[in-house]
Amino acid sequence: MGKLMRRLSTQDQSFKQAFADLLAFETVSDPELLKTVDQIIADVRQHGDAHVLKLTQQFDRHPAHQFSDLELTQEQLKSAFEGLDNDVREALELAENRIREFHQAQKQDGWTYVDALGNTLGQKITPLDRVGIYVPGGLASYPSSVLMNAVPAHVAGVAEIIMVVPAPNGELNPLVLAAAYLAGVHRVFTIGGAQAVAALAYGTETVPGVDKITGPGNRFVAAAKRAVFGQVGIDMIAGPSEILVYAEGENNAKWLAMDVLSQAEHDTVAQAVFITPDEQLLNEVEQAIEEHLAALPKAEIARTSIANRGALVLVKDRQEAIDLINQVAPEHLELCLDEAQEMSEQIRHAGAIFMGRYTPEAIGDYCAGPNHVLPTSGTARFSSPLGVYDFQKRSSLIMCSQEGVKTLAKTADVLAQQENLDAHARSARYRYQ
Amino acid sequence: MGKLMRRLSTQDQSFKQAFADLLAFETVSDPELLKTVDQIIADVRQHGDAHVLKLTQQFDRHPAHQFSDLELTQEQLKSAFEGLDNDVREALELAENRIREFHQAQKQDGWTYVDALGNTLGQKITPLDRVGIYVPGGLASYPSSVLMNAVPAHVAGVAEIIMVVPAPNGELNPLVLAAAYLAGVHRVFTIGGAQAVAALAYGTETVPGVDKITGPGNRFVAAAKRAVFGQVGIDMIAGPSEILVYAEGENNAKWLAMDVLSQAEHDTVAQAVFITPDEQLLNEVEQAIEEHLAALPKAEIARTSIANRGALVLVKDRQEAIDLINQVAPEHLELCLDEAQEMSEQIRHAGAIFMGRYTPEAIGDYCAGPNHVLPTSGTARFSSPLGVYDFQKRSSLIMCSQEGVKTLAKTADVLAQQENLDAHARSARYRYQ
Repeated sequence: MGKLMRRLSTQDQSFKQAFADLLAFETVSDPELLKTVDQIIADVRQHGDAHVLKLTQQFDRHPAHQFSDLELTQEQLKSAFEGLDNDVREALELAENRIREFHQAQKQDGWTYVDALGNTLGQKITPLDRVGIYVPGGLASYPSSVLMNAVPAHVAGVAEIIMVVPAPNGELNPLVLAAAYLAGVHRVFTIGGAQAVAALAYGTETVPGVDKITGPGNRFVAAAKRAVFGQVGIDMIAGPSEILVYAEGENNAKWLAMDVLSQAEHDTVAQAVFITPDEQLLNEVEQAIEEHLAALPKAEIARTSIANRGALVLVKDRQEAIDLINQVAPEHLELCLDEAQEMSEQIRHAGAIFMGRYTPEAIGDYCAGPNHVLPTSGTARFSSPLGVYDFQKRSSLIMCSQEGVKTLAKTADVLAQQENLDAHARSARYRYQ
Repeated sequence: MGKLMRRLSTQDQSFKQAFADLLAFETVSDPELLKTVDQIIADVRQHGDAHVLKLTQQFDRHPAHQFSDLELTQEQLKSAFEGLDNDVREALELAENRIREFHQAQKQDGWTYVDALGNTLGQKITPLDRVGIYVPGGLASYPSSVLMNAVPAHVAGVAEIIMVVPAPNGELNPLVLAAAYLAGVHRVFTIGGAQAVAALAYGTETVPGVDKITGPGNRFVAAAKRAVFGQVGIDMIAGPSEILVYAEGENNAKWLAMDVLSQAEHDTVAQAVFITPDEQLLNEVEQAIEEHLAALPKAEIARTSIANRGALVLVKDRQEAIDLINQVAPEHLELCLDEAQEMSEQIRHAGAIFMGRYTPEAIGDYCAGPNHVLPTSGTARFSSPLGVYDFQKRSSLIMCSQEGVKTLAKTADVLAQQENLDAHARSARYRYQ
């Protein structure tokens, strides 16, 4: 089999460097692309609807004659839903229900308390007013992404959820529209690219400006989101998808191999890593990957992915695996062993942890309940899955009593003087003198 | 008095436009600055300690001979704390205690639940491993900023808090070091600028690479934080400080005027807005601002700030004020009226809400408890005060049972086929067939 996938062992002299090389992945920013995107944003800000329409006709070959042709009605969403085959409609409904149930558990409430001095302190939680969800068009137009972005926003109580989805040649995936209907999307525009991001960020005559934009897209979309960050909020810029599967003890090598391939089939730069202390299992998984590839429609993508970025890693023991996992901070982590829960307690960094032999990553992509928008490229070290908390924000609450403020005002007076902020000091002083 | 501050009334024909103009503030990105910052980052990545030392000697005129001269010991922090005057030490301790108490209430715990099918779902919460806190040097070297950044990280359970603070000519504010000691900062390097941000983001021989960088800085620091975003997490890029004071009913105009000036003294581009339905009070506040300015050390800054960006706004009634406040999404909001709590319930967007006549914004800067790092420039529409949640992150937990997975695996199979992801479908299918 030879070059199917690199093989590493922690016993190798060169392991540390080889493992670091495996993880290295730097996206290079292309100055030409940034310039193009900046120009599109500037033009959309200046010319609004007209420019978005023009670019949509040009880039998407959309047959629209006027901007209003680019908005879908709730009727259209509903009829897309009603037109689905029974099994697909039921699957979509089950997925939506489960995603909603999980995200409801994430919803946060405000709180207040009264301190020992009689002052009230607290944290108020409010939903964002209006958000934009970007859904890619064409082949990568996934209904599951619609659910994963729109449901948390809906659960958070966002008053207006605007979806944009490009329709190349005017064509749309009805399942995407059905998902929008189910998830509670309020308005849908069939626009895409940097022009859609600009329209959402700054608003046009027709597209209302939003407060935050989430959802995946190509490099134009990613660059545009980065450019409008600050004007609006954005979610993380997603890198290539990754899975790290750890297995020990009784396991079915065929299942594990297919789990590895389920990430590899996404993208030639996706990363699939299999780790085990069991050399026999490592061999069996390698063999099963080879066998599966023969029958996989996306075998070519998967083969490139595992050859370039995949690895089979032999470790001495479970503790070594834990250390490697915490170094990787994988987007998806499968722990396929009897003591999965126990092991998960030692995992500090991962987007989502799938435990046991009956929890393939693929169910997390669709219907387990938790979000499938997860931190990639090691960013699980400092960021979280997309969630209801991304569509809520906090305000601090402070209310002092006439007595209770005195100690605080004196303290603020002393410290403000140390910082040479005299108006601060005097403003505080008025309240205790 | 004439041009002290612009005056607007919602009854004016031109009000809408004038109010929009007041809020307009766009930071222009300077391509030369970005180029300089990119070069510094590239050089620090390549040459590590040596380059950081060189720039520190050059920009800060620091007398250090070797990189180790740029690290402070815990002994130095402790003796800075012990050397404080009693009243200052007590004020700092009270502030630290209160900030800690409030932030402890923010700490989030993980949860799990078992669904109707017998599958376990949940959310695990973990602190970041290591964070970097940027503290400006020189005049803007505020001990309060050290507390507001370090205490939430410490409460979150961050294992290593690294502070960087430039020391122009080798000089440091002892109160800043004392605050670092109190707040539980683990290591301090006397470096600053884009070179400090680069060292924290990528690590050098001596400075450990961190997972997130927070804290305010000049435009080099802001540009560097933006550039390393993705490699590490960052907090929001802060804009100029703002206050919006709303008052009605019995109030002391002098107090209100000083509250307005406490933001205006920060910066010539700070924004202070006073809103009331009471024209008499509007006149009194304007008069009091003029009087206060005569005695204020930072009168020149404050005068420029209110002349350029301040406003006195007359509204018809409270509801009009609520609508304007939600449009502004102010960083700091004072509600100086008897029904402050009732009114606060209608405020959807604000960084912090100070209620009643005994809650000047200045106590929030130092010791009320809530964080003083707040969303500026209208970003309270989609973001929150700095908090413990910025130093924690979440991982999703999924563990299916052999029976419980069946429904989910079937659903995933159907949906994965719709998305043409065959390995996903097969990986799911193994678990129910």
